[in-house]
Amino acid sequence: MSQSTPGPVSAASVASDAAPLAPVTVKLPDGTTHQHPGHTTAMDIATGISEGLARSVIAAEIDGRIVDADRPLGELDADGPLSLRLLTSRDGDALDVLRHSAAHVMARAVMRLYKGVSLAFGPTTEGGFYYDFDLDVPISEDDFPKIEAEMKAIIKQKEPFERFVLDRAEARKLCDDLDQDLKVEHIDTGLADQATVSFYRQGEFVDLCRGPHIPDAGKIKAIKLMSVAGSHWKGDTSNRPLQRLYGTAFFDKKELKAYLEQIEEAKRRDHRVLGKQHGLFAINPEVGQGLCLWLPKGARVRVTLEDFLRRELLSRGYDPVYSPHIGRVELYETSGHFPYYRDSQFAPLFGSEVGALLDAWGNRLEAGTIDSDGEDKLMAAAEVLGVQLPDYKPSMSAEQKREVLHEWQLVNERYLLKPMNCPHHCQIFKAQSRSYRQLPLRLFEFGTVYRHEQTGELNGMLRVRGLTQDDAHIFCTQDQVEEEFRATIELTKFVLQSVGLDDYRVQLSLRDPDSSKYVGSEQQWDAAENSLRGVLEQSGMDFNEEPGEAAFYGPKADFMVRDCIGRSWQLGTVQLDYNLPERFKLEYNGKDNAAHRPVMIHRAPFGSLERFTGMLIEHFAGAFPMWLSPEQVRVLPLSDKSIDYAVQVAKQLDEAGLKVTVDSTGGKVQAKIRNAQLDLVNYMAVVGPKEAETGQIALRDRIDGDLGSMPVAQAIARLTDEVNNRTVRQAVTAK
Amino acid sequence: MSQSTPGPVSAASVASDAAPLAPVTVKLPDGTTHQHPGHTTAMDIATGISEGLARSVIAAEIDGRIVDADRPLGELDADGPLSLRLLTSRDGDALDVLRHSAAHVMARAVMRLYKGVSLAFGPTTEGGFYYDFDLDVPISEDDFPKIEAEMKAIIKQKEPFERFVLDRAEARKLCDDLDQDLKVEHIDTGLADQATVSFYRQGEFVDLCRGPHIPDAGKIKAIKLMSVAGSHWKGDTSNRPLQRLYGTAFFDKKELKAYLEQIEEAKRRDHRVLGKQHGLFAINPEVGQGLCLWLPKGARVRVTLEDFLRRELLSRGYDPVYSPHIGRVELYETSGHFPYYRDSQFAPLFGSEVGALLDAWGNRLEAGTIDSDGEDKLMAAAEVLGVQLPDYKPSMSAEQKREVLHEWQLVNERYLLKPMNCPHHCQIFKAQSRSYRQLPLRLFEFGTVYRHEQTGELNGMLRVRGLTQDDAHIFCTQDQVEEEFRATIELTKFVLQSVGLDDYRVQLSLRDPDSSKYVGSEQQWDAAENSLRGVLEQSGMDFNEEPGEAAFYGPKADFMVRDCIGRSWQLGTVQLDYNLPERFKLEYNGKDNAAHRPVMIHRAPFGSLERFTGMLIEHFAGAFPMWLSPEQVRVLPLSDKSIDYAVQVAKQLDEAGLKVTVDSTGGKVQAKIRNAQLDLVNYMAVVGPKEAETGQIALRDRIDGDLGSMPVAQAIARLTDEVNNRTVRQAVTAK
Repeated sequence: MSQSTPGPVSAASVASDAAPLAPVTVKLPDGTTHQHPGHTTAMDIATGISEGLARSVIAAEIDGRIVDADRPLGELDADGPLSLRLLTSRDGDALDVLRHSAAHVMARAVMRLYKGVSLAFGPTTEGGFYYDFDLDVPISEDDFPKIEAEMKAIIKQKEPFERFVLDRAEARKLCDDLDQDLKVEHIDTGLADQATVSFYRQGEFVDLCRGPHIPDAGKIKAIKLMSVAGSHWKGDTSNRPLQRLYGTAFFDKKELKAYLEQIEEAKRRDHRVLGKQHGLFAINPEVGQGLCLWLPKGARVRVTLEDFLRRELLSRGYDPVYSPHIGRVELYETSGHFPYYRDSQFAPLFGSEVGALLDAWGNRLEAGTIDSDGEDKLMAAAEVLGVQLPDYKPSMSAEQKREVLHEWQLVNERYLLKPMNCPHHCQIFKAQSRSYRQLPLRLFEFGTVYRHEQTGELNGMLRVRGLTQDDAHIFCTQDQVEEEFRATIELTKFVLQSVGLDDYRVQLSLRDPDSSKYVGSEQQWDAAENSLRGVLEQSGMDFNEEPGEAAFYGPKADFMVRDCIGRSWQLGTVQLDYNLPERFKLEYNGKDNAAHRPVMIHRAPFGSLERFTGMLIEHFAGAFPMWLSPEQVRVLPLSDKSIDYAVQVAKQLDEAGLKVTVDSTGGKVQAKIRNAQLDLVNYMAVVGPKEAETGQIALRDRIDGDLGSMPVAQAIARLTDEVNNRTVRQAVTAK
Repeated sequence: MSQSTPGPVSAASVASDAAPLAPVTVKLPDGTTHQHPGHTTAMDIATGISEGLARSVIAAEIDGRIVDADRPLGELDADGPLSLRLLTSRDGDALDVLRHSAAHVMARAVMRLYKGVSLAFGPTTEGGFYYDFDLDVPISEDDFPKIEAEMKAIIKQKEPFERFVLDRAEARKLCDDLDQDLKVEHIDTGLADQATVSFYRQGEFVDLCRGPHIPDAGKIKAIKLMSVAGSHWKGDTSNRPLQRLYGTAFFDKKELKAYLEQIEEAKRRDHRVLGKQHGLFAINPEVGQGLCLWLPKGARVRVTLEDFLRRELLSRGYDPVYSPHIGRVELYETSGHFPYYRDSQFAPLFGSEVGALLDAWGNRLEAGTIDSDGEDKLMAAAEVLGVQLPDYKPSMSAEQKREVLHEWQLVNERYLLKPMNCPHHCQIFKAQSRSYRQLPLRLFEFGTVYRHEQTGELNGMLRVRGLTQDDAHIFCTQDQVEEEFRATIELTKFVLQSVGLDDYRVQLSLRDPDSSKYVGSEQQWDAAENSLRGVLEQSGMDFNEEPGEAAFYGPKADFMVRDCIGRSWQLGTVQLDYNLPERFKLEYNGKDNAAHRPVMIHRAPFGSLERFTGMLIEHFAGAFPMWLSPEQVRVLPLSDKSIDYAVQVAKQLDEAGLKVTVDSTGGKVQAKIRNAQLDLVNYMAVVGPKEAETGQIALRDRIDGDLGSMPVAQAIARLTDEVNNRTVRQAVTAK
């Protein structure tokens, strides 16, 4: 649970110092329940169990929410007994609490070293934390040692983090007294609807903060400042510029060391660098930012992945389809993808050059940012461009006006670059009459979709504007959901295992029981969630549930995969959908000869070919396992005299389906071997007069080195076995 | 040579009755030359050879131009001897002359039957001819018999077609006297720059016409009126509405019969009807006109075609690539595809909603259709939408203004849906440094491109707005052109043969020797054209040369393929290109270590997957040969008791790679067989208790019927052989 910003504090969490706290019933993980006075803290309960346990407690999870270990339990809202879990340094969530506290320590150190520091926000990030400061002096990496030294001094004092709550007026006054103008502004704007505000104090340092925090600073065993960058108040570039100081913290020095090594390793594996070096892909601003050009070697990897998955899907009862990369805007209005996601999509494409003018005009009407003068000007411009709008009257309501503009668009056609494939697949479902006999209908496509990600967010193949999803939509009955979910989970496991990714868990996103913002009936959701949970339980896979994380249209499961340097990637997703079948009015004829609505399942084991390949490049450090490799064997003639035999060997390997090249450059074979190693070729076949005479090759493995001479047929058998078995040996040994 | 409209007559073709014609030298196809008086006609020369030949002469081709057989040769312009070829009914070009004359006969018949007929134009079409009339009475199909009868009466009289020439004033007066106001208008407008105008007379019928015509109406042995439709004068819907009467004519009644049968057959094979009936593809106006949704069965055919070609290309030394479906407008400005082809492209896609307004504005400036008032209005509108253009001054030239608008666009990004893949492939070539050692570099992609064809021109899969080209670009040295051309010709032959299309010829488009509108040197063109011609000669293929038909950037070869009902399709194209390498400044490092420009070859054996598949659907009448079939085998259990065995058989067939389904509906096996036949399934495997006991199936061929019982393994061997050999048996027998 990341506490990314000091946020509102619910009234329930504020203890009135005056009123005594009511007793609480606490349920421990072993199922036992105990009655405690209201002032009892999680730490008290830990101490009651053992002093050792109490020393290792970092925070507590109560009814799924993380709180300070020294928070009186009576302050917490509860309908029944409070479910308590004590968090120690072994819990992933505890690290986040530690880092949040470390951000406070860093801010405190900065304020000790610099004058006039205005604090902004200091949240945790995936690998650590940052804090944004307004500060006249620019901080540079040269300043890191002194800040780190100050932080260590603070940590050494092991001062506790103390929580206190003020009403808004008091809170505002405190921040004002502390000269923290940004905090004052935040109380006035971001927290305007909160009656009370929480703070944390550590020694002389006081910060408006939602918490939670570690009991005392001594829990922080390792810290490091990572970088400094520019930022802006509340992330808006029109606001005041700030300095963002990044750091990280751990419970253990070894963990910090491992993390720093991981970062170094990640740099070495950067797919953008390797992609260029090995000719895998290119992104060219002349073509467009975020648009991948797959170069021959990268494209060979993609062909192999697509071919592999297509065969798998066909054998698992999927049907191929193809759909265009554009669709009429109305299609996305039906699906709901437009205009709600307009900001992350490419602008519509108009049948007429005046279309965009009318669209911009309609947007202004919707936003209410156009006056009658502006309206007259747009009408005049439309006329210059040859558009008459006789039905448009200045006296109309904005909605009526938008209707007129929209009518014109309808006639003149607007298209959208498709941001997803589902609307097209729904239309394919509807293109023929459907009977229950045809269900489940599983439509798959390598469908390229386009999204206008912000330039700053683009990152090689990992974050792009054009991505090819290994997309499929399963249309089935409610009764079939469980079996289809099981099959997609099995498929995803199979796919991940095929590329040697076997360290993963599934995250199951469920609806929030409190909310009513979901489509589909309670009954449908219960059935679906129970099915999904049941399948995951039966599979014996590691999974966790995330209540409240489901989309409004159905529960979903995500595979969280760890790569070989320990980074976590969200890959294969399976998403249930009760919404699109409704919006597109999909129907099938049931056994009862009546019309029924199918359930839809979206799923993509790779996610996208771009992101998956980018991840694989980093995971394998560019050295693809044999079956995915764009260059499996390189034949190296000892000298020019052996080129003919080399070509003959290459032909045999090629006919056996291996991806083979010949190094016919001049030079010594040692240089050729070195080049092949650098080019990450899986095997080298060295051939000289001796090999030519005996019909052999001297086989060399990029990883294990010389394998000795053997007949060509024997080498072929060995190598094709490795391909067919999809053996993955590289990941661990690649350096 | 289609004479589609009565057009201008060159001065050289008009004989001054006064001046005697100079003698001419005539060269016959056997190479002999003969001197003749100027008034000699082709018919005179035919008569001199034999009376029989003279009777069969329809027209003459002189120096590549088709003229009346009774035209005095001295009227024709010539630098040296006139090359004469006599056209008889066996020459394809003669049929066009016949049909043009038949259009006159039809017009004459209509004028005899109706009062106040205004004649418009009467050209030939691919299958016949039409004539546009302005006529108060609507003609319906019920009127066809009486018009045909009148035509036959005219034909029976065998009256000659007589040519005469008038100066413009006389011509205008004649048309006016004949009450032919449309002809008068055409003389005033379309022929305004012609000094003289030619006419043809047949009996009482006189028509302004460029000719040529048959010697007399008796040559027309078979006519038929086909349909009537609305049209407009000069094809402009704002002009006077006309009635267009379509007909056809032949030298032989049998040919007419065959043609009518072909039309019936074509209707029966209409891919739009079969595509819907068999669930191959759908076009849905909610997605967009001209945008194919490939339904599962059609998509299976496409997967097979793509897979087949991909393997072929990989084994022939091609490299796969993938590129996005959009690119920045500047990319297409570099390639020259924008703005020149703007009308046939989807409008650009703008990074900003105001982009289109500025684009429209720039277009108006370019066209000169905007005054300062209109300009002020557009500026005001741009300001309303938040765009400031401080550099735009009313006093600037239109070009400077466009420059300002363009600068703004550059910063704000415009994209185009890619109309072709070549610019992207050029960028892939440029993405890495290239050496002569890497050439030829053959980059292939199934690349989907988008073109905004007019709604009226769209036709199922055959004419679409989104098409996937089996595109490749070969980058090679000039020395490699011949070998690469040979290889692409071989590949195209192989591809066509694989789908059973073996009736084709190649059309070689060469530059016009007179023109200088070509890029690349004379030398380069000579070398290229000689290479191409040489390859085609060596291949022993049927080919013809079309001087003047080459694009300005290089010669090309097209495969003209006849389908099983005799229709001609332009398929595989091979295009040399000296232009794009120049525009993109492509370079490779030569043996001499200097930079050289490569030659590019564009080629696509299928053309596009959409058009090729549409053509195949019509060619096979929906009944794909085994290897392309989306449903190769259907297992038919005799009763529900045999379903288990049927599923078991299907599993075996599936594991052998066959596309198999099970008909598990209830009902009699006879009905199941009938359904499978109607669904064009290639083989049926009937299974009952007897087959289950013996591990056999009763195999049934859709074409040849019952093949008897056999062990499953034997059936698998037989069917997989048919797949692997890509046997094509259906086309001829399909009914």
